[in-house]
Amino acid sequence: MNWFSRLRRRSIPSGAAPQLPARRETNEQARVDFSEFTPDILPFLGQAAYIQLENFENLARAVSAAPTLTAKEGLTRSAAGALSKHHELIELIRRQKAEPDETMAPFAPAIDAFRESTLGSDWWELLVTSYVTAGILDDFFTLLAAGLPERLAAEVSEILRRPGATEVIADLVRTEIAADPMLGHRLALWARRLVGDTLLVTRSALRGAQGFDDVEPVFTELIAEHTRRMDVLGLTA
Amino acid sequence: MNWFSRLRRRSIPSGAAPQLPARRETNEQARVDFSEFTPDILPFLGQAAYIQLENFENLARAVSAAPTLTAKEGLTRSAAGALSKHHELIELIRRQKAEPDETMAPFAPAIDAFRESTLGSDWWELLVTSYVTAGILDDFFTLLAAGLPERLAAEVSEILRRPGATEVIADLVRTEIAADPMLGHRLALWARRLVGDTLLVTRSALRGAQGFDDVEPVFTELIAEHTRRMDVLGLTA
Repeated sequence: MNWFSRLRRRSIPSGAAPQLPARRETNEQARVDFSEFTPDILPFLGQAAYIQLENFENLARAVSAAPTLTAKEGLTRSAAGALSKHHELIELIRRQKAEPDETMAPFAPAIDAFRESTLGSDWWELLVTSYVTAGILDDFFTLLAAGLPERLAAEVSEILRRPGATEVIADLVRTEIAADPMLGHRLALWARRLVGDTLLVTRSALRGAQGFDDVEPVFTELIAEHTRRMDVLGLTA
Repeated sequence: MNWFSRLRRRSIPSGAAPQLPARRETNEQARVDFSEFTPDILPFLGQAAYIQLENFENLARAVSAAPTLTAKEGLTRSAAGALSKHHELIELIRRQKAEPDETMAPFAPAIDAFRESTLGSDWWELLVTSYVTAGILDDFFTLLAAGLPERLAAEVSEILRRPGATEVIADLVRTEIAADPMLGHRLALWARRLVGDTLLVTRSALRGAQGFDDVEPVFTELIAEHTRRMDVLGLTA
């Protein structure tokens, strides 16, 4: 746990955007350092696929709870996007001659518990949950994919990098917090808790538990991308 | 309300499959008799699109509540199917130069209330709700589409006739009630209530309120198709 607090202290200096190397450089560094932490193909795909399913469930819940038809309609696009990612990852599991259900099953309890604990207390928090957790986790599994066989790595990246619910949720949240700054404060606090919980999920997905110093640049990159996404919402990470 | 009870008495003779004319004949009859009851294009599309959204919400809820990963995975396919139908009907609304949200809005309260009252008391009833209501309503709007301009009618039919959640739910229910006949009784009772509620939705979608005798063959056809779907579940309609 020290590792996370150290990471966060270093990567989010108070009141300033983190100083980052140019993005291309960071990605190359990640590609070098990170692939040894990539799990085997099936555990990778099982986790990645199940995480998309959980995000779909969050978005579907947000569709049902949406206060306006416009919001509902926008969120159905996001839900469809998460479901496509899920189904395409499932296809990749099938191509490995594995059963998707059996491949996902070992990861379901922990990811279910993560989802339960991050549903939030209202619709706005749920929107931020989908935005923050799917953002970080898609980035994370994209980076982790660098350790997969080349063709599979490219396919996984193509699926995960596809824009998710980002724009729809950002529009909704930005508009609302402009009218209600207290909501903005509450959502910023909520997002900070989500980052901690989400990084625990990423940590448990890494192969092996030593040598975290080696992967710190990747986590710095995850946090930097998260910070950019929070800027888009109009919130401080 | 008499009309419905008469309809049901006539169309579901106790203990026997209803005697039906050949399907093609019935459809032609419907094409002649039914088109005068077809609402204008936008009210038609608004209702049909919103009903798919509600079915998506039911299926998404069923995904979340699924007791096994296999069931969850199967139901995500059904949810994706309902969402595609919804989005394709939305596209048809846009092609009419109308706003989907405004087009659906007048129908949302009644359809929301219908959904609320048909959620059922557990996951099995929810599955049967999606199966029964989506089955009848897709058939109904397909028949009603006969009164739309020709090209649009063909497009709407193509969307609505695409198989929905049918097979996944039928497999789940059939397997379970084979092991638990009491559940079968309960679900058969639930389905009968659903038919009444669903026919009220179809009734309110008809243009005008007179001349129901003219459309009775269509309702007979709806009930006959429903009865066939219940046979697939292993339940008496």
